[in-house]
Amino acid sequence: MKILKTIEELQEIRKIQKNKTIGFVPTMGALHDGHISLIKQARIENEIVIVSIFVNPTQFLPGEDLDAYPRRDEADKKICEMCKVDYIFMPLSTTMYSEEEVLIKAPNNSYVLEGKTRPGHFDGVLQIVLKLFNLVQPTKAYFGKKDAQQLTLIQQMVKNLFLPIEIVPCEIVREKDGLALSSRNVYLNEEQRKEALFLSKSLYLAASLVGKGERSSSILKTKIYDVMKNLDVEYVAIVDRNFNEIEEIQLKNSIILVVARFDNTRLLDNIWL
Amino acid sequence: MKILKTIEELQEIRKIQKNKTIGFVPTMGALHDGHISLIKQARIENEIVIVSIFVNPTQFLPGEDLDAYPRRDEADKKICEMCKVDYIFMPLSTTMYSEEEVLIKAPNNSYVLEGKTRPGHFDGVLQIVLKLFNLVQPTKAYFGKKDAQQLTLIQQMVKNLFLPIEIVPCEIVREKDGLALSSRNVYLNEEQRKEALFLSKSLYLAASLVGKGERSSSILKTKIYDVMKNLDVEYVAIVDRNFNEIEEIQLKNSIILVVARFDNTRLLDNIWL
Repeated sequence: MKILKTIEELQEIRKIQKNKTIGFVPTMGALHDGHISLIKQARIENEIVIVSIFVNPTQFLPGEDLDAYPRRDEADKKICEMCKVDYIFMPLSTTMYSEEEVLIKAPNNSYVLEGKTRPGHFDGVLQIVLKLFNLVQPTKAYFGKKDAQQLTLIQQMVKNLFLPIEIVPCEIVREKDGLALSSRNVYLNEEQRKEALFLSKSLYLAASLVGKGERSSSILKTKIYDVMKNLDVEYVAIVDRNFNEIEEIQLKNSIILVVARFDNTRLLDNIWL
Repeated sequence: MKILKTIEELQEIRKIQKNKTIGFVPTMGALHDGHISLIKQARIENEIVIVSIFVNPTQFLPGEDLDAYPRRDEADKKICEMCKVDYIFMPLSTTMYSEEEVLIKAPNNSYVLEGKTRPGHFDGVLQIVLKLFNLVQPTKAYFGKKDAQQLTLIQQMVKNLFLPIEIVPCEIVREKDGLALSSRNVYLNEEQRKEALFLSKSLYLAASLVGKGERSSSILKTKIYDVMKNLDVEYVAIVDRNFNEIEEIQLKNSIILVVARFDNTRLLDNIWL
């Protein structure tokens, strides 16, 4: 496994591997089993696997946890090595950005839900993903369904800009008790860790009600809020794959999303129906 | 020569020609000797030459000449055939754009000079160029120096987004009497055609003064305005390669730009020092 730090190193590698299939997993590091599942899938489906580790400043808003975001470079390298990653790309911030920048503006559906709380966040996400895509030129790129809105917007960017890349959505990885994996889970104290279970519990209940024929978003939301009644819930939303809120569940085209706060830690979870 | 109208046709061709060098000339049609010089250079330097003809709606502002923009598809096809172009890509507007779009936001230097008169124009230019680049995946793309600010912004986009494409700037092609070629020259009546000569004349004078050692932008501008005193001049500007206005000419890093109006026709010209 090689660590690449500069654009030139990456471009050189990419030139040598020109005719190979490249699987790409962009991350902000602090790798957990969720990332590992993406890397494993990339490993199975491609000749070369490249993981990027870059805590992207442009997707953090002023006052957000950029500086506090967990950084665990050495542990991350070991995990990548164990997963038989070929290359880790770990650039400096000054490598990825210059003073004047051509910017990416995510469409209107980037300003609802996660984008409502974090206006401009997705502009930064798309900007860094586009830069990385152009550098890595992957055959396939792997993203978790957990960041559902991010995944949707990246798929839209690929479609709009005709990027010659296949986006592979990957299932959410959970702890045995149901908690969706997140780099931010480490911030939870024991009590919060227990309460956090009500996110996935509420989604399981909703899925089971949909299985029994329930289609009304308002009824499902009431049930979900009821399960999470002791949490500081930020939102519960039921949307189609374009992130438009819907009144009735449409099978194969609906996502239920929940977000709750635990002091300064926001946890999100969702289920794709 | 093949005419491609759909994304799928272009992608298919691009897959077949995977390991060839591709020269790309994006145009809005109404091809003239300026375009032909770009195509000829692309023909010399690449195995495959692709020309796109697409009057891009997103770079026209409301009230601009989108509908009146000259369309001469049959003549354009003949010109491309004569220049031994391999493929013309002529998509419909609905092929290139969908309802919701991830947008490109050009940097601040896109709001001076041409961008001041046409705010948002360069956002549309970069958007279509990026889409076309991703579809065509050229080795080299050819742009005229006449649209100097456009060329600069495209170079900046390639740099910022790490696009694996070489941008080739091409010299301005002129009529024998010095008038820079433009698709909009056809709008000039006989009298205006004569007056339009004062654009290039003013630039030649400035270049000769620089050759004699003059470096002051304000003195050069005065001389330029003097040559064009009977024209409806919109601006005269002296900028560095990043389009920042400069007070002193820096050799190899300066561009002098002039724009004048002839009724509804805006003509621009420039010289790279």
